[in-house]
Amino acid sequence: MDTGSLKALAFDVFGTVVDWRGSVIREGEALARERNLGDVDWPAFADAWRSRYAPSMDRVRRGEMPWKNLDWLHRASLEELLVEFGIKDLAEGDRGRLNNAWHRLSPWPDSVEGLTRLKRAYTITTLSNGNVALLNDMAKAAGLPWDLIFSAELIHHYKPDRETYLMVPGLLGLRPEEVMLVACHPSDLRAAREHGFRTAYVIRPLEWGPEWRPEPPDPSFDVNAEDFLDLAEKLGA
Amino acid sequence: MDTGSLKALAFDVFGTVVDWRGSVIREGEALARERNLGDVDWPAFADAWRSRYAPSMDRVRRGEMPWKNLDWLHRASLEELLVEFGIKDLAEGDRGRLNNAWHRLSPWPDSVEGLTRLKRAYTITTLSNGNVALLNDMAKAAGLPWDLIFSAELIHHYKPDRETYLMVPGLLGLRPEEVMLVACHPSDLRAAREHGFRTAYVIRPLEWGPEWRPEPPDPSFDVNAEDFLDLAEKLGA
Repeated sequence: MDTGSLKALAFDVFGTVVDWRGSVIREGEALARERNLGDVDWPAFADAWRSRYAPSMDRVRRGEMPWKNLDWLHRASLEELLVEFGIKDLAEGDRGRLNNAWHRLSPWPDSVEGLTRLKRAYTITTLSNGNVALLNDMAKAAGLPWDLIFSAELIHHYKPDRETYLMVPGLLGLRPEEVMLVACHPSDLRAAREHGFRTAYVIRPLEWGPEWRPEPPDPSFDVNAEDFLDLAEKLGA
Repeated sequence: MDTGSLKALAFDVFGTVVDWRGSVIREGEALARERNLGDVDWPAFADAWRSRYAPSMDRVRRGEMPWKNLDWLHRASLEELLVEFGIKDLAEGDRGRLNNAWHRLSPWPDSVEGLTRLKRAYTITTLSNGNVALLNDMAKAAGLPWDLIFSAELIHHYKPDRETYLMVPGLLGLRPEEVMLVACHPSDLRAAREHGFRTAYVIRPLEWGPEWRPEPPDPSFDVNAEDFLDLAEKLGA
């Protein structure tokens, strides 16, 4: 790819940079052991939590509720899931701790090294539906070396609203084609491309667990990469 | 100081972290040599440019003009100063380069090391009237290790508007007293204190050049520090 005019890389975070599923399962299992919560299917719990993610944001996107950040939406979903999975009498502090599992998600093994390389050649920023405090806590815990943390929360629009994408070139003083979205979700990439971004599809085969199969590489994206080290290689960083 | 509940440090940037005056003088002198601009008093030019800073933002703050970011305001002031200082026929590219001197300001000698220490114990963010692209370019050029870049541009309010200060605890999910403003300008600190922030006054004796004298330490601030290393010491970082 001709990287001549590429200035900034904007990263989707959940799934692309960090392993939300493995992390939420570990946090749930640890809490269950400490609090004797009994037999909970934590992989199913994590998947159910994440499955409520897009529908909960869609209610905000359609204007059915005023702006709520992702911590708030995660917590509302959690309250429903505790009932659904039969987890009773969990103290308020423990509910907060479980909700904050999303602030402590672990990076994929290549994430920190790949971002560190990419940062030398490009501005690297998040472009996530996660709220700012969540993304900052995650970055500090995991050592993610962001130049900037851009969040849907800054503009009160969740992806794939156009406002969220256009915030990045707007605030960086760049043209959209000088920005590349990096994501493991083709739908996110296709939305960004509609607004003029370049696109890099990074396959994360374990995002939804070992049984799941991601979409294959797609030559309509500017780059298809196996991980962030491969992406750095392909972007000359 | 009891630092127990302190979570985040928000830094004023121009003067506090970087030496705007020395940097603008150097950039002006270099441009003058290259373009044979003749005898320009660059220290006076830098001071005059900076003196238009607060009045230009005040026009936005009073609603006399719609939101304009700092690059725009700097450029408008620059056009006036070129006339005032008799600098004629400067090409558009050179005007842009001179305006972008504010994106390349040099840090004080203690800034990078002090911020690196403070970052281990606290979230460190800018809280600047500079626009996001300016602050990001500066951070990348100077190696300033910010966790976050918070700018007046994110909320379309310049300091000392209350919205600018309150953005920080709002986005970090903190109470104002869990945030400390670090600045070399007592007026900025006093405004932040009104909104519940803790305050650290860092003396920058050379901000306005060798003849100038800063306000002395003031025991009404939570911390008075000689530089960022002294601040790190006093905050246990």
